[in-house]
Amino acid sequence: MGGAGVGRVTAAAARGFATAEIIAVGSELLTPFKVDTNSLLVTSRLNELGIQVLAKAVVGDDRSSLMAIFRQALARVDLVVMIGGLGPTADDVTRDIVAEALGRPLAIDMEILQRIERRFAARGYRMPEINRKQAMVPRGATPIPNAHGTAPGLWIDKGDRGVLMLPGPPRELELMLAAFARDVLAPRAGAERLHRRVLRIAGRPESHVDELVQPIYARWRDADPPVETTILAAPGQIELHLTVRSADSAAAEARLARSIEEVSEALGPDIFSTDGRALEEVVGDLLRERGLRIAVGESCTGGLITSRLTDVAGSSAYVQAAIVAYSNQAKVDLLEVPEALFAEHGAVSEPVARAMAEGARARGRAEIGVGVTGIAGPSGGTPEKPVGTVAIAVVGPGPAVRVRTFTFPPGRAMVKSQAAQAALDQVRRAILEHRE
Amino acid sequence: MGGAGVGRVTAAAARGFATAEIIAVGSELLTPFKVDTNSLLVTSRLNELGIQVLAKAVVGDDRSSLMAIFRQALARVDLVVMIGGLGPTADDVTRDIVAEALGRPLAIDMEILQRIERRFAARGYRMPEINRKQAMVPRGATPIPNAHGTAPGLWIDKGDRGVLMLPGPPRELELMLAAFARDVLAPRAGAERLHRRVLRIAGRPESHVDELVQPIYARWRDADPPVETTILAAPGQIELHLTVRSADSAAAEARLARSIEEVSEALGPDIFSTDGRALEEVVGDLLRERGLRIAVGESCTGGLITSRLTDVAGSSAYVQAAIVAYSNQAKVDLLEVPEALFAEHGAVSEPVARAMAEGARARGRAEIGVGVTGIAGPSGGTPEKPVGTVAIAVVGPGPAVRVRTFTFPPGRAMVKSQAAQAALDQVRRAILEHRE
Repeated sequence: MGGAGVGRVTAAAARGFATAEIIAVGSELLTPFKVDTNSLLVTSRLNELGIQVLAKAVVGDDRSSLMAIFRQALARVDLVVMIGGLGPTADDVTRDIVAEALGRPLAIDMEILQRIERRFAARGYRMPEINRKQAMVPRGATPIPNAHGTAPGLWIDKGDRGVLMLPGPPRELELMLAAFARDVLAPRAGAERLHRRVLRIAGRPESHVDELVQPIYARWRDADPPVETTILAAPGQIELHLTVRSADSAAAEARLARSIEEVSEALGPDIFSTDGRALEEVVGDLLRERGLRIAVGESCTGGLITSRLTDVAGSSAYVQAAIVAYSNQAKVDLLEVPEALFAEHGAVSEPVARAMAEGARARGRAEIGVGVTGIAGPSGGTPEKPVGTVAIAVVGPGPAVRVRTFTFPPGRAMVKSQAAQAALDQVRRAILEHRE
Repeated sequence: MGGAGVGRVTAAAARGFATAEIIAVGSELLTPFKVDTNSLLVTSRLNELGIQVLAKAVVGDDRSSLMAIFRQALARVDLVVMIGGLGPTADDVTRDIVAEALGRPLAIDMEILQRIERRFAARGYRMPEINRKQAMVPRGATPIPNAHGTAPGLWIDKGDRGVLMLPGPPRELELMLAAFARDVLAPRAGAERLHRRVLRIAGRPESHVDELVQPIYARWRDADPPVETTILAAPGQIELHLTVRSADSAAAEARLARSIEEVSEALGPDIFSTDGRALEEVVGDLLRERGLRIAVGESCTGGLITSRLTDVAGSSAYVQAAIVAYSNQAKVDLLEVPEALFAEHGAVSEPVARAMAEGARARGRAEIGVGVTGIAGPSGGTPEKPVGTVAIAVVGPGPAVRVRTFTFPPGRAMVKSQAAQAALDQVRRAILEHRE
C-alpha cells in the first residue's frame, strides 16, 4: 500500500465514521405488502454514535442493481450497512456482491462451517449442502457471531471505510448489532454523540404546538450546543424530538434538560411524557402510584381503551374490569344506565357517558370509572351529531367528574383511536388535578 | 435529435414501461421514527400495470446524494417515481434536482401560480412569497392537479423514460396517483398486467403451509401463464400471495381461480379468506349471514378481541357486549364464573374459559359466547402453565362447545395478538361446523 493510502486511512481514522448508508436486500421488501423496519433500528444505533444516515435503499435479488447501489453508497459514505441476503439460497447475493465489488474473493471459513454443522446436528439434522454458502467469507472480513441463526454477520474494515453485513431476521440483527456497535463501532465513530429526548403531547393540534414552541426553538438553534427539533404528529398525539450533537455528554444532557423545562413551561400538563413512555404507561404509573383502580365502560371504542391499558405489563394490578356495551340494552343491563337517558339525551350524550362511567366504576369496584359513547361511523351520524362525535366521562378519583364532548375527523379507525387516546388523556388529567 | 435517439424512443414506446425505481425524499424518513409507507401504495399501482419496482431509495434534503441517486435510477429503469420534496421551503429540493439532472431549466407556470394564490385567498390569506416555488416547473413537464394541497405533481415524458414527481402527504398522493395511473401510465405500460390474489390462513404454522403447498406451486411455476407464490407470516396468520403476469386478463384470472381451488383442497377450512378480508371481517360476515350475535368474556386479551370485532363497520348489528375481567373477583361478579373453579382448576384453565364464555353469552343475550383466559406475561407463568398459555372457549351456536388450550411464544404483545387471532378463528370454525 502506498503512502497516499496510508495517509488517507490515518486522517479518516482520526475523524471517525460520520456518515452511513443502509441497504436492505430482499425482493419481499419491494412488494406492496412489506416495509423495511430493520433500518429504523440500525439508524437508531448509528445515530447514538453520532453517525448520520444519509440515504437508505431497498434492493431485491437483482445482482446488477445491488452491485450498482452498493458501489455508489461506498463512494459516498464512511459506513455501508447491508441488511439481509445472507441466507443459503441462490437469491441470497449480498456476500457475493460485496466480495466482487471490493475485489476480496470468498473463501470458506472452517470455524463458521463447523458452527453451522453443529447447529443442525443439535436439532438432529445433517447440514444441507446449500448452507455451506453461509460459511463463505470475503478475504479479510471478520465474522460476527449470530446467537439466534445460522448466518454470521460480516465486517470489513477498510480503514477509511467500513462495510457491515447483517442478517435480515430482526431477532438476529438486534443482538448482533448491539454488541457490534458497542465493541467495534463506538471506538471507530467520531467523538460526537447524539443525545435525544422525546416529548409527547396530548390535547393540542400540531399547528398549536408548533406555534407555541417556534419562538423557543429559534433560540435553541443558536445555543451552544444547538438543539435541533422535529415535530411528528400521530392521531391524538404530537411528538417533539429534541436532539443535541456533542462530544461533551454532560453539557448535552444539561442542555436537553433545560430545553425540556422551557417547553414544559410553555405547554404545561399537555406534555404527558418526556422519557419515552406511551400514554397508557403514564396512566398506569399514575394509577399504581396513587393506589387507584380503574374500570371502563366503552361503546364506540369497542374495547380499544382497555386493550391499550392492558398492553402494559403489570396492568392487572389496577385494571379492574371493562364492559363494552354497544347497544342501549347492553348499556342498561351491564352498566346500569337509566333507560330514560336515551330518550331524553340520546345514546351519544354526556349524561349517558357519565352514567356509563359510574356504572363501570360500581360494577368494577374501582376508584375511577370511564365512560365513552360516540359515533365511529361510517353510518349513524346526524346533522347535530355527525360521525366523529364522542362523549367522554371520567368519574373519580373521589367526587371528581369530568365530562367532555369531542368531534374527531371521520374515519372509523381514526375515530376509535382518537377517542381512546382522548379518554386515556382525560383519566391522566383527572388524576393529576386531584392531587392539586 | 439523431436517428438513433428516435429509434430508441420507438422501441421503448412499443415495449412499454416495464421497470421502475421509487425515491422517497425527506429527512424525517431517515430518522429512527418514521418509515416510508407511500412507496407501498405506489408499488401496488405500478405492479397492477405490470411495472416491476427494482429498487427503492430514501434520501434526505442532501442535494448531492439526491442528485447521484436520481441519476443512477434514471440510468437503470424506465420510470423513476420521486415522492416528496415538493414543498415551498429551502429543504424541498426535488424539482431543482430533477431540472438540473435533466437539463430542463425551471420556469414559473402562471396557471399553477394563480391556482395556489386562489387556494390561499379562499382561506383569507395572501400567498406567502416562498410558495411561488411550488409553481416552478421544469421545461416540458406536465403538471398533475392536486385536489388536496398546493403542490401539483409533475410528469416528464422522455419517450423511452419517464419521471414522475408526487407530493408526500398520502392523501394528496393517493388521489393524484390513481388518476395518473389510469390516464397516463396505463397506456404507456406494456400489455402485460399483474393479477394477484391473497389467501389468508389461520391455525397452521408457516412451515406446515409451505410443506403442503410446495408440491402444488412447483407445478404452477411451469404452467402457462405461470403462477408465482410468496408466503408472508404474521402472528397467527399466514398469507399466500399468488400472482400471474399476463396480457390476457381472462386467462390470468381463470388460472388464479384454479390455483385457489387447488390450495383450498390442500388446506381446507384453514383458509379463511381469498378476497382480502381480515379475520374479523370474515367472522362478522358469518355472524351477519346466520343472524347470530356474539358476546365476549376476555381476560388476558384485555379487550383486543372485541376491539378487532368492532373495527368492522356495521359490527354493532352483531357485537352485543364484552366484559374484560382480569381479576377472579371480576370474573365472578361480571361473568358469573363459579368461584370453586379457581381453586379446582386455576384461573387459566379450560373450565374457567368455558364458564366465561357462558357468562358472556348469558349476560350479553347473544347466541355465541367467547371466553379467553391466559398468561400474557411477563410474570405469572409457572412450570405447568408457562407465559403464553391461553385457554379459549366458544359456546354456541346452539349446544356446540369448543374448548382448547394454546401455548403461544412469549412476549406480552405477541401473546395478546395471537390469542385474539386464535379466538376469532375458533369462532369462525364453530360457525362453519354448525352448518354441517
